[in-house]
Amino acid sequence: MSQFEYTHRRKNPLTGDWVLVSPHRNNRPWLGATEQASTESLPSYVDDCPLCPGNNRANDTKNPDYQDTFVFVNDFGALNQQQQTSDTNVTSDDELFTFEAANGECRVVCFSPDHSKTMPELSVDELTKVVTTWRENYQELASKFANIHIFENKGEIMGCSQPHPHGQIWAHQHASSEIAKENSQQADYYARHQTPLLANYIDKEVADGSRVICSNEHWIAVVPFWAAWPFETLVVAREDIRQFGQINDQQAQTLASLLKELTTRYDNVFNCSFPYSMGWHSAPTNLADDSHWRLHAHFYPPLLRSATVKKHMVGYEMMAESQRDLSAETAAAILQKASTTHYKQAQQ
Amino acid sequence: MSQFEYTHRRKNPLTGDWVLVSPHRNNRPWLGATEQASTESLPSYVDDCPLCPGNNRANDTKNPDYQDTFVFVNDFGALNQQQQTSDTNVTSDDELFTFEAANGECRVVCFSPDHSKTMPELSVDELTKVVTTWRENYQELASKFANIHIFENKGEIMGCSQPHPHGQIWAHQHASSEIAKENSQQADYYARHQTPLLANYIDKEVADGSRVICSNEHWIAVVPFWAAWPFETLVVAREDIRQFGQINDQQAQTLASLLKELTTRYDNVFNCSFPYSMGWHSAPTNLADDSHWRLHAHFYPPLLRSATVKKHMVGYEMMAESQRDLSAETAAAILQKASTTHYKQAQQ
Ligand SMILES: O=P(O)(O)O[C@H]1O[C@H](CO)[C@@H](O)[C@H](O)[C@H]1O
Ligand SMILES: O=P(O)(O)O[C@H]1O[C@H](CO)[C@@H](O)[C@H](O)[C@H]1O
Repeated sequence: MSQFEYTHRRKNPLTGDWVLVSPHRNNRPWLGATEQASTESLPSYVDDCPLCPGNNRANDTKNPDYQDTFVFVNDFGALNQQQQTSDTNVTSDDELFTFEAANGECRVVCFSPDHSKTMPELSVDELTKVVTTWRENYQELASKFANIHIFENKGEIMGCSQPHPHGQIWAHQHASSEIAKENSQQADYYARHQTPLLANYIDKEVADGSRVICSNEHWIAVVPFWAAWPFETLVVAREDIRQFGQINDQQAQTLASLLKELTTRYDNVFNCSFPYSMGWHSAPTNLADDSHWRLHAHFYPPLLRSATVKKHMVGYEMMAESQRDLSAETAAAILQKASTTHYKQAQQ
Repeated sequence: MSQFEYTHRRKNPLTGDWVLVSPHRNNRPWLGATEQASTESLPSYVDDCPLCPGNNRANDTKNPDYQDTFVFVNDFGALNQQQQTSDTNVTSDDELFTFEAANGECRVVCFSPDHSKTMPELSVDELTKVVTTWRENYQELASKFANIHIFENKGEIMGCSQPHPHGQIWAHQHASSEIAKENSQQADYYARHQTPLLANYIDKEVADGSRVICSNEHWIAVVPFWAAWPFETLVVAREDIRQFGQINDQQAQTLASLLKELTTRYDNVFNCSFPYSMGWHSAPTNLADDSHWRLHAHFYPPLLRSATVKKHMVGYEMMAESQRDLSAETAAAILQKASTTHYKQAQQ
């Protein structure tokens, strides 16, 4: 039995947290909640969808008849700019009750006018437009805020309140907890090795091969050694890109093609629209030196054993640390075997 | 408008992480997933339940005809002791691929022979037996392992695969990620103040009163200032108790009574069996000095707006930091107003 078939822990070098891996646990019986698989195919246009072209949104704004992507400021954003008054920008003097005002902007990015098309179902050209829309909004928001979070919640199971294909961008000055951790872990590694942590990491993954899912000239997707979610992946820029706004046109196109392949493989694992939360991590724009940073995205998909059985990150995971049953290597092997032709297309 | 009605961040002194608070966001429309409220009342005995007295479990072991609590080693535990061979206890020499073997024991604790009774529906005497069962198992496991996690996942929505009232205990030598963080934050605070962090914290909460839900001579339950989940609470020992195994008989009884009141208030918020994950944090038993520790439990309930609408900790929360809509003070006011007579009893 290999060392990884025994229960063990692996350390996430980007956050410093550990994950408990229990490969023998895959066979336990399951009587708990199963999620509903959405097998229905959606129409291309839905007249009460607030994201479809030409429709009205909550506050009676009318969407334009957009042709590719469409971006607007979230009508119910968690962050806004109405409060940039100096008297609210307070911090408590008691360390047990520390708080600070937070200003920012939340945007919604529609990926396509077609209500029914998720990422793997868009063409590389259409996805390139998504990538350049992200880039344009990143650059614009970077003139006002140091930290720009581009992310997507896909599927009802991931709290997505609208099936229309879309993601979000939340921008603010402060470095959020995850960015603060990744920044200090990467800075610490760089100080000791004079190479970015993720540059060294992907070199080793390429040499090993067992956890690599897909790659091209500019991008690589791996199941990270320290993956916590069953089919978690990490997409990393192979060159020295530190912020999303720095992607050039060629890199935008190769990224689109990698995202199409990765999300197609995901959908083909259980022949369903694979839910996930994904998001980009860029260097904060206000660092004196960001040489230690490497642009990357995390995909956190919850499904574990079928289109309807997900991994619950609950009790032990909340109180102690993440726990997984199938190993990162097994998950990688499943994703490697998954077809690159989308199951819906294959069925036609 | 008070400073807490604007968007702001609060810092969790136990972990060092922040939470983003957006009180204005409560009114957005919701078209996403709603969870099913389980209104059915369960029978006291179910013949294919693997936790009911006298029934067979997965591996053909027969449960005894137990009268109060019943503990067994989890047939599908994430941790076990079969691997305590020195050759598997390896650690990588590459910091990007750090791993270590993990041994331990996972136990299941049935709270009652009655299939239908959750914590608030048990009597104080019955709950005292749950507390002393936890203590007994803690003490026993502490002779073998330094870290003992006592926790409960309640409700299908929290990944609980068995409705029969039960919790779990996972014990192991290593300090898990959460314990490592809480240990270093508490040690750091103690070095600067010569008082445990949580001792000072509950003194201030008692003086303020606005976030206190219930308390007695030995225990207090508050919505912590830095709560991330909508109705998150923190239960803290008011005296110098550092590990669960140190609770005396009187403290066990007052804890039972506090748990009954807290979980009754929870059920009464939405007149449903309120799901949550809860767990106890004790000092690791192998610290040279644990003066900085204070025994406490976290309750993380996911419900937000009704028995069927939960808070999803997804995209932004996974990539950046936790975000909440209603403030800790509003949640505390709702819990304070909730009746201490369980809604099922009130309906009779
Ligand atoms: O052990 P159970 O109840 O089958 O499983 C549940 O609790 C465990 C500990 O929190 C989690 O790892 C599982 O994801 C969850 O479904
Ligand atoms: O903004 P949405 O899609 O309505 O909301 C969703 O994404 C947000 C950002 O990850 C989360 O805070 C919400 O809990 C989730 O339901």
